[in-house]
Amino acid sequence: MISLSLAQLQELVSIDVAAISAITDAYVAVADGRANVPPVGYLGLPAQNADCHIKYGYIAGDPIFVVKIASGFYDNPKRGLPSSSGMMIAISAVTGATVAILNDEGWLTNLRTGIGGAVATFALCRPDSEVFAVLGTGTQARFQIRAAAALAKRPVQFLVWGRSVQKARELADEFAGSPIDVSVAADLEEACRSADVIIATTPSTAPYVASEWITPGTHITAVGADASGKQELDPALIARADLLVADLASQSLDHGEFAAAFQAGLFRQEDCLELGAILNGSKPGRGSSDAITIADLTGLATQDIAITRTALQRVPDLVM
Amino acid sequence: MISLSLAQLQELVSIDVAAISAITDAYVAVADGRANVPPVGYLGLPAQNADCHIKYGYIAGDPIFVVKIASGFYDNPKRGLPSSSGMMIAISAVTGATVAILNDEGWLTNLRTGIGGAVATFALCRPDSEVFAVLGTGTQARFQIRAAAALAKRPVQFLVWGRSVQKARELADEFAGSPIDVSVAADLEEACRSADVIIATTPSTAPYVASEWITPGTHITAVGADASGKQELDPALIARADLLVADLASQSLDHGEFAAAFQAGLFRQEDCLELGAILNGSKPGRGSSDAITIADLTGLATQDIAITRTALQRVPDLVM
Repeated sequence: MISLSLAQLQELVSIDVAAISAITDAYVAVADGRANVPPVGYLGLPAQNADCHIKYGYIAGDPIFVVKIASGFYDNPKRGLPSSSGMMIAISAVTGATVAILNDEGWLTNLRTGIGGAVATFALCRPDSEVFAVLGTGTQARFQIRAAAALAKRPVQFLVWGRSVQKARELADEFAGSPIDVSVAADLEEACRSADVIIATTPSTAPYVASEWITPGTHITAVGADASGKQELDPALIARADLLVADLASQSLDHGEFAAAFQAGLFRQEDCLELGAILNGSKPGRGSSDAITIADLTGLATQDIAITRTALQRVPDLVM
Repeated sequence: MISLSLAQLQELVSIDVAAISAITDAYVAVADGRANVPPVGYLGLPAQNADCHIKYGYIAGDPIFVVKIASGFYDNPKRGLPSSSGMMIAISAVTGATVAILNDEGWLTNLRTGIGGAVATFALCRPDSEVFAVLGTGTQARFQIRAAAALAKRPVQFLVWGRSVQKARELADEFAGSPIDVSVAADLEEACRSADVIIATTPSTAPYVASEWITPGTHITAVGADASGKQELDPALIARADLLVADLASQSLDHGEFAAAFQAGLFRQEDCLELGAILNGSKPGRGSSDAITIADLTGLATQDIAITRTALQRVPDLVM
């Protein structure tokens, strides 16, 4: 068994061809029935304002399966500690022996979420999309920008909006001098109206993206809502969209961005496709350049497996 | 974060006063409502004839919570490998940081199951019990014997029965020269008829302990049935018993020793008490010296927490 630190993992894997391919396959594996992804385990520690999620699963044919432990201790910032921590445990699918412990502190999840968002975005947006509005100024906004820039086949422009203009400015400043074009959007409505693509990354618990701001042809990738009570988009926008796509419909309709609109009866279960089925060609994706498309991503254990496998395949002499 | 090997763990913890006290409290914590024990996670790998169980939970007030990953790869013995492997991960209940990884290879589970069985046995058997029939000749038979011998307040005699007389003899030989009195039972029925206590430890999928062999006053601790389809005791014996006790009723009635009899309507849910409620005095235990009592133990995440905490409390300078 080996143990890998965050620094070692950052040397092994990045937003690169192998990782993008593995994350794309992670969506397809679910659609193809190659994935065994049991429900996510949840341990609440309300007295500590904390919780722990345990995601685990297996992709048929893989040398390993993966158990991910991800904790959120929301009072940690008061102590100067990050609120998130986490690790991945790779276990041999041949013998059950632990192959590796990846002490990634949540970084692999951020990375796979960023790549997963970009894969969804470019599977569904208009090919001529140029203006990408990024809502939110946290860690995931940064990962989404880097991953979308890596997957874009033509130059694109990122407009970052946040409730704090200062934080949006800090984010844009981080990209100054890089080949990635990031500027600050002063106004949320204006950013949404001008965008070809909107990437929503906030932990908002109330919809803040109005339906009337969204012009035909826009694609939206929503990664913020990953638990009951979180929501970024106006339910009327979800009802109005031409195409609703989830990474895993059962999660999205239960506790993702689509949950409230679905539970209010604004669309039918069969109206929510899964991204893997579009990626493997079994379902059509964007129908026309005027369509409004929305991808809701709540996170798949297969992505954790895919990013872990990608990292471990680069460890010299590691037997899996 | 520290990482502890099996050898290191075997130096830190054993069948001793601290571990017995912690395991006893693990039962009581459930009854007292101090335990948060979500359902066990399960990942099946049928193509590999394998599975993985993930047990996790928290006892209020503890410095850590624990996630246990336990795999069974049932074709491993053909390759000369043990079928079970496992690890415990101790995570700070204050910050979410990983405190320790215990690479116990399943040994801590065996230890806590042994101690947990003995705690149940001595909570429910007649105080004058002398003859302990142990059914099965595997690892858990050995742990149950060692733990029962440690908890016994008077000299007791163990009679070991197995389908293989050879394996029973090997087990008894291991104790030769030790202060623990272990002999081989040639006949199952005779062993059961003569026993004050029966400890059933086999993975049998068909009942093999007949009701008519069990004399009044006998206590039975059953630890073998921990999954649907496993059963050691005649359902008629369960129906006839004066006291049915589980570590966790919801588990026992769903997939433990009591499941088949319960699902056949041979007793009511309220007839199954939980051991913690007897240990904390809120429910009566054995009523008379003639009573037949049965404890069905399917395993509690709180026992994993208790044994992990006990081991870590002995690591010098470890901050929890």
